[in-house]
Formats: sequence, C-alpha cells, structure tokens
Amino acid sequence: MAKKLTSREKDYSQWYNELVQSADLAENSGVRGCMVIKPYGYAIWEKMQAELDKKFKETGHENAYFPLLIPKSYFSKEASHVDGFAKECAVVTHYRLKNDTNGKGVIVDPDAKLEEELIIRPTSETIIWETYRKWIQSYRDLPILINQWANVMRWEMRTRLFIRTSEFLWQEGHTAHATKKEAVEETEQMIDIYADFAKNFMAMPVVKGVKSANERFAGAEDTYTIEALMQDGKALQAGTSHFLGQNFAKAFDVRFATKEGKKEYVWASSWGVSTRLMGALIMTHSDDNGLVLPPKLAPYQVVIVPIYKGDEQLEAVSEVALKVKKELEELGVFVKFDNRDTHKPGWKFAEYELKGVPLRLALGNRDLENGTIEVARRDTMEKETFQISEIGNKVVSLLDQIQDNLLTKAMKFREENTHNVANYEDFKSLIKKGGFVYAHWDGTSETEEKIKQDTKATIRCIPEDAVLEDGVCVFSGKKSIRKVLFAKAY
Amino acid sequence: MAKKLTSREKDYSQWYNELVQSADLAENSGVRGCMVIKPYGYAIWEKMQAELDKKFKETGHENAYFPLLIPKSYFSKEASHVDGFAKECAVVTHYRLKNDTNGKGVIVDPDAKLEEELIIRPTSETIIWETYRKWIQSYRDLPILINQWANVMRWEMRTRLFIRTSEFLWQEGHTAHATKKEAVEETEQMIDIYADFAKNFMAMPVVKGVKSANERFAGAEDTYTIEALMQDGKALQAGTSHFLGQNFAKAFDVRFATKEGKKEYVWASSWGVSTRLMGALIMTHSDDNGLVLPPKLAPYQVVIVPIYKGDEQLEAVSEVALKVKKELEELGVFVKFDNRDTHKPGWKFAEYELKGVPLRLALGNRDLENGTIEVARRDTMEKETFQISEIGNKVVSLLDQIQDNLLTKAMKFREENTHNVANYEDFKSLIKKGGFVYAHWDGTSETEEKIKQDTKATIRCIPEDAVLEDGVCVFSGKKSIRKVLFAKAY
Repeated sequence: MAKKLTSREKDYSQWYNELVQSADLAENSGVRGCMVIKPYGYAIWEKMQAELDKKFKETGHENAYFPLLIPKSYFSKEASHVDGFAKECAVVTHYRLKNDTNGKGVIVDPDAKLEEELIIRPTSETIIWETYRKWIQSYRDLPILINQWANVMRWEMRTRLFIRTSEFLWQEGHTAHATKKEAVEETEQMIDIYADFAKNFMAMPVVKGVKSANERFAGAEDTYTIEALMQDGKALQAGTSHFLGQNFAKAFDVRFATKEGKKEYVWASSWGVSTRLMGALIMTHSDDNGLVLPPKLAPYQVVIVPIYKGDEQLEAVSEVALKVKKELEELGVFVKFDNRDTHKPGWKFAEYELKGVPLRLALGNRDLENGTIEVARRDTMEKETFQISEIGNKVVSLLDQIQDNLLTKAMKFREENTHNVANYEDFKSLIKKGGFVYAHWDGTSETEEKIKQDTKATIRCIPEDAVLEDGVCVFSGKKSIRKVLFAKAY
Repeated sequence: MAKKLTSREKDYSQWYNELVQSADLAENSGVRGCMVIKPYGYAIWEKMQAELDKKFKETGHENAYFPLLIPKSYFSKEASHVDGFAKECAVVTHYRLKNDTNGKGVIVDPDAKLEEELIIRPTSETIIWETYRKWIQSYRDLPILINQWANVMRWEMRTRLFIRTSEFLWQEGHTAHATKKEAVEETEQMIDIYADFAKNFMAMPVVKGVKSANERFAGAEDTYTIEALMQDGKALQAGTSHFLGQNFAKAFDVRFATKEGKKEYVWASSWGVSTRLMGALIMTHSDDNGLVLPPKLAPYQVVIVPIYKGDEQLEAVSEVALKVKKELEELGVFVKFDNRDTHKPGWKFAEYELKGVPLRLALGNRDLENGTIEVARRDTMEKETFQISEIGNKVVSLLDQIQDNLLTKAMKFREENTHNVANYEDFKSLIKKGGFVYAHWDGTSETEEKIKQDTKATIRCIPEDAVLEDGVCVFSGKKSIRKVLFAKAY
C-alpha cells in the first residue's frame, strides 16, 4: 500500500506528482521530460481514444499516418509556424552509430551525417500540407478529412507528467476545404466535439471560445479552445481547433481547380487533444485519497474484493463474486475481481481508492449468509449494503449517479471560483486567489501583455457565449464590447 | 480511374509498387525511406490492430507507452543488441533551431547540443528493461505482460513500401517472468497467436519455427518466426517472438526476490508484428487487377454501386440500395454505398476492383423492376444475379466463401512451390526458381553462410513440425537430424 499522499492544501503540485505515480498512471523516464505511461494510465487514455475516434469517424474523418521526421526545409516554409516551434525542436543529424576506435564505446558515426537535418514532428501541418499538394488537384478531391493518432515532441524546459512533457501522445486532425465557410464550420464542429467529450465523458465543464492573437497557434488565423478550471484555481487549455485560413496552402502551394475551372488556394483546419487530457481529468476530480474517475473513463468501473479466512471461505465467496461479476458484465459494466492472496483486503481497499475505481464491492462470509454485498462509492466515500439479488440495477444506477455527481461537483467548484470584475484592483486580488475572472479588455495585445506581466494571468479565451455590452477595459479604461476570460494557466 | 497495373509476370516489384500507390494504401514521403500510410491502407491496419489487440488482452497483456528516444548509454548496455542495431540508428543531437545571423534561414542551434545523444527507438528492449528494474522487486511483481503500439525507426538503405521502411508502425510485447519455463511458454504462445492471426484473418498460411543462430534477434536466445511465401517465390518473415533469456535482466540488473528470499535475474520475452504485415497481405492475395482483400480485414466488405440515368432513377435506386445497406449492416457487414455523381459506374467498378473490395453489388433500373441485384466477387471475378429478398444470406455466405477460398488458394500456391531436395544441384536450381525448399543442414553457421553466398537463400526457420530423421547436409554432406526451410527472402 502506498503511503498517504501529500494533501492538496499543503502542496498541490506535490499532491499531483505523488498521485500520478502512486496510482500507477505514469512516471518520469531517464529521458529528460519524457514519461512512461503505465498500463493503468494507458488504459484510461485508450478509453478516451476510443470515444474520440468514434466521434471523429461519425463526422466523416478517416485516420492516416504521416512520417515522424520532417525535413528542416518543409518546416521552415510557413514563417510564423517555424517561429512558434523552432525553439523546442528535437533534431536528427546522424543516422548511424559505430564502435569508437579509441575504445570510447559506441559513438555517433561522423561519416553518417545527414545532408539535411530532420525535425521530430512537434505537430504535422508542414509534412501533411507537403503531401496534400500531391493529393489535391480539383474540387472533386475536397474535402480531405484526416486524423492521425501519433506521438509528437516539443523540447520543454519545465515539464510535469501529462500536463507538459517533451514527448506526448495526441491526435491531430488536418482538413482541407474548397471554401472558407466550410473550413470554419469544420473548426467549430471539432471544438464542439471536444467540449462535448469533456463534459459528457470526462465530467469536466469547459468554457468554449477563441484565443486572442497572442495566444493563437503558430500559423492559424483563429484558434478555438476549451478551457477548464483545475482545483488549484488555474486554468488548463484542454483542446484546440485552428482555422488555418489559406496560410499552409500558400506556403506549400496547394491549389485546386474549382467547378468553374479557376485555380484557388485550399482552406484548412487542424485540431488536437493530447495526453494532457489525462492531467486535466486527474486535477478536476481527484482528492487527497487519490484518483477519482468518472465511470465512463474508468478501465474498470467496479472492483470486487473478497473478505475471507482460509481457502474454504475464499472458494465460497469467489463462487458468488464470479456470479455477480458475470451479471454486471452482461449489463455492460467493466468489473475486476481481485482474488489475489498475496494482499490483504485492507491493502486492496486502499489501492482501489488510490486508483479511483468508482465502485468497490466487498463480499465476505457473513454476506453469503445474509445474501448481501457491501458497496462503497469512491466519489462520496459512502458505503451501503444491498441484497445481492438487486446488485445489477443498483450498480448501473450508481455508476450513472457518480458520473452526474462528478460533473455537478466540478460545475459547482467552477461557479464558486468564477468572478466578474469591474476594476483592476479587484482583478488583481481575484487573480491572486485563483479561479476564472471575467473582465472587459480593450482588445489590444499591449494591454494583454501588461496584464500578464503584472499578474501572470492570460486571456484564456473570448468566450463563445460572451454577452455584447458596452464597457471599459479593466486595465486601460478604453472601450470594450464584451468581457473576456482571464486566469493563470498551466 | 488508374491506368492498368504492370503485370506480376512482367515485373513483380513494379506491380507491387504501383498497386500500393494506386489502391491508395501508401506512398513515399519526402523523407528518405519513410512512408505516408493513406486512409484506405490505414483502415486495413486498424482492422489488424483491433484483432491483435483483442488477442493480446485476452491472454492477459496490457498496453503501455515508453519513450520514443533512448539515451545512447542504455542502448549500449546489451552488447549483441547494440551490435545488431547500431548501423541503422537515427540520432538526435540537438534540441533547438534558430534563425541564422548570416541570413541562411533556419539552422540547428549549435548551443543546443545534447550532452548525451538520443537514439530514436529501433525497438524498445533497452528503455523498457531500464524501467522494469524499478518495477520489479519481488516475485509478487511478476509476471509483467506489457504491449506497446508504437512507431520505430531503422535507417534502411533499400526501402520498399510496407515491406521495409525506415519508420514503421508496430506492436512490441515485452514480458518479464520468474522462471525460464514461463518465459519460453509466453514466447511460444505469442508466435501461436501470430500464426493463428495470419491464417484465420489474413488468410495467409505460415510456417512456424525457430531461427538459426545467424538470423536471431540481436540479444535473443531463441527467435520464433512465422514465414509466409509470396507470389514471386520469396519468403517473408511476418512476425517474430523472442525468448530473451536473462540477457536484458543482466544488462540492466533486474533481479527479483523469490518466495524463498533468494535474488534471481528475471526471464524475458519480446515479440512483434508491424506494418510489414500489410505488404505480406498484399503480396499473398492480390492480382494483376489490383488488391484482393480477405473479408475479415476489408475496411468495407461490400460496395454498392448504383446504375442510373438522371436524378429520378438515382433516387429510386438509392432507396432500395439504402435498404440493402441497412439490412447488411444489421448482419454485421461493413458496407459502402457509393452514390457520388462525379464518377461513372464503370470508373467505380474499376476503382473497387483495384481496392480489393470483396463484393461489389450493382443495382440498376431493371433490377428494381425484377427485384434483383448483381453481385460480383473480387477473388474469382464471378458475377451472379440474386433476388434482393435473399441478398442478406447470400452476402454473408459469400464473404465466408471468399475468406476460405483465399486461404485455400494461398495454401495451394505454397504447396505447389514447396520442394524437398536431397542434393545441392537440385537445391540451387529450385532456389533459383523460387519457393520454399526443405533440405538437410548440418547445423553450422559456416554452412549457412556459404549457401547464402552461393544462392542468396537463407534458412527461414527450423520448422516446429520438422520430422526427426537421419540425413546428410545438402551442402557439406555432414550428419543432419531434420530438414530446415530455405528460401530467398524479403
């Protein structure tokens, strides 16, 4: 059994790191900033992938795979794109090792230097648009609706498991369209899919909106984002969808013949979510006892722990437990029966609490006599005893309740930590406390920069549902037409 | 519509390249030896992945993810492993680009040189065993049964789409066990899973066996393999499973406390199949008209093509076609209805023939009158007309027949191209013709090497089912106890 976690109140960041590691989600590797995603963490990621992949396919997207390595010359073609990513690129310069003749062991073979350096993709717009040029001749070839599940690398200086790692896993959609309207609609459709997934699967409420110019993706005309509030009052950007205009089409000369026979540049979108969602999930729901998982993303939603003395009791308990397991599985519930005799029930209770299994069922000798079974909820820590005969319905209904409760709780937390401010003093003190702060802004990058320097807060987004109203910028006093969302962010 | 493929007889290799590209499976990228896997090709790979992943999970394996980059020092720890892979390693030496002050554009920043070079994984034994050392203390931590779906890179000089590319996608299983027996059983279980998948999903018969010492994985004590015969008479190694002994445990000092409290080195296996299977699939079944897919791996098993003149007919045909589609989907069949009006039926027929869709259904105005539908099989090119009322059963039964027929055909081809030889003259002439050749071998690497130099044939495996018999080596005349399988190979 793992030792007790540092409490969130005492040291939030320490709590997070301990939780990620002791719940067997991920750990740091010997490679700077790169993590090992452990089986339990990966199983949650697989659940996320499966659901997102389904949504992508339902909306007409297909998966494909593009090369990991991007020639430097492609990478440099879109000016603001290379500016945005150049500082964090891992570069391949050689293609062979050899034994050193001076006995220094294995060294890089200086004779195997590449003519052109290759960049490990930090994102794939450049190699994909280089490829799309060959695929797109006419309007008949459009739209192209492609997604890729892949690893990417951005050489980060300060890393944190899942939230910011040098290598991470993600999906990146890259679409090509005949019209601006269609590309914008695609961009918006995908941010809607992300928001829906966050709310209905992760039980994580998000604010949907567009980024200010400062915070836009390098090469985008508009970046749509979903922003979630973590328990320490910091915002986390959980997914983005970019309207790329014709920027990449122009950089890679991708034109198509219209129905009327004219040549026009193609319009584009790209959109992605990553293993960062794992961090968001953890920080939205978990508590000082460990991970709390929404049932829809839990690798197993129910764990059954037998309570017994000796082999005879274990056998009797197991027989009933396996029946319960089977019944639940037939109802579509994912169940683990932990009958290991290497660990005691108390150890197992603590273990599954730490791992956030939504429901724990305990079954002992006395239960067999009474036809009962004890059920413990991970979210509320409440225990209740049910008749075994009713366990199927109870479990299904409890899982629904837990899923709902987590969302309600997260929404309540966000509500309590969201404020509207009218002056800069209030703004500063609220930002200091943490949480979402809505305030009027004059729309200039200059003001945004100054506020950031002053308070470390950034504009998370211009919310989609912002009310148009006359106001004055909280910082400059200049005219503003709507409030935007500020917060300190991960 | 694509132009006609070069025939297999005329130029097999050309036929293959044309087919892969014109059937929209994959194409070369601007990065040497790295391919773009196009949506249609990727959809087949996804079907393979889904089935294999299910089999891995059914046998107790979990997925995880380990870093892409491996420090050179880890990589060098197992001597024969580094010898085997050093010559084909892509090496990351820098982590930043910058704008050149002399106006040369974007260059690698010389100040951002890594202290230790990082290798892009050609396979992950080293980084995984470095990690396992932290995970394994006692027998309670064993076995570890982990699989990873990932991209890997081996800098190949001669590449061919799917068959040999510098970057490829694969799965790599890495398991750790308390006993040699258990590790060997795992190794054998996994090669059995691969063989079963090859036969029952890919409709590709394979010979299962172990590699000779020369052909073993770098770092393995034994390599189990499945070997398939391609239509040009060359063998293709389609999957391998390695018994690693304690080699990696010793190199990375991974020991566990036994129940009795002794410290022992852990036993290991690793096993993998890759996108190379796509090449094997293509070369096993396809013909001069294009791809032929076994129904179990076809992204869509049935395509419905409407034959019509004018919108009114299209509408009438579509109504029936959509009913047929729905009925088939309810039977678990994957169906595409191609109602695009940008392409003519003849174009579509050729397109789906090229793409290997197992069944093509054509539905026209006269069919509506007669209540009929035309069904064309891709494997035999036979056409038959059925009553629409019976189409569900017919399609399900035809798909089964096609799956069976492809396996039968491939087995027959292999049988016709497999020979037993007793002397070296016959050996040489048969190897020259192509196909599998069984011959006695004296068991020495020296003989194996000489035969290879002479004929380009290698020992594909010592077959699992080889009959023990007294014989003499076809080359040296020395004693031999069983025949082994020789062939020229991809």
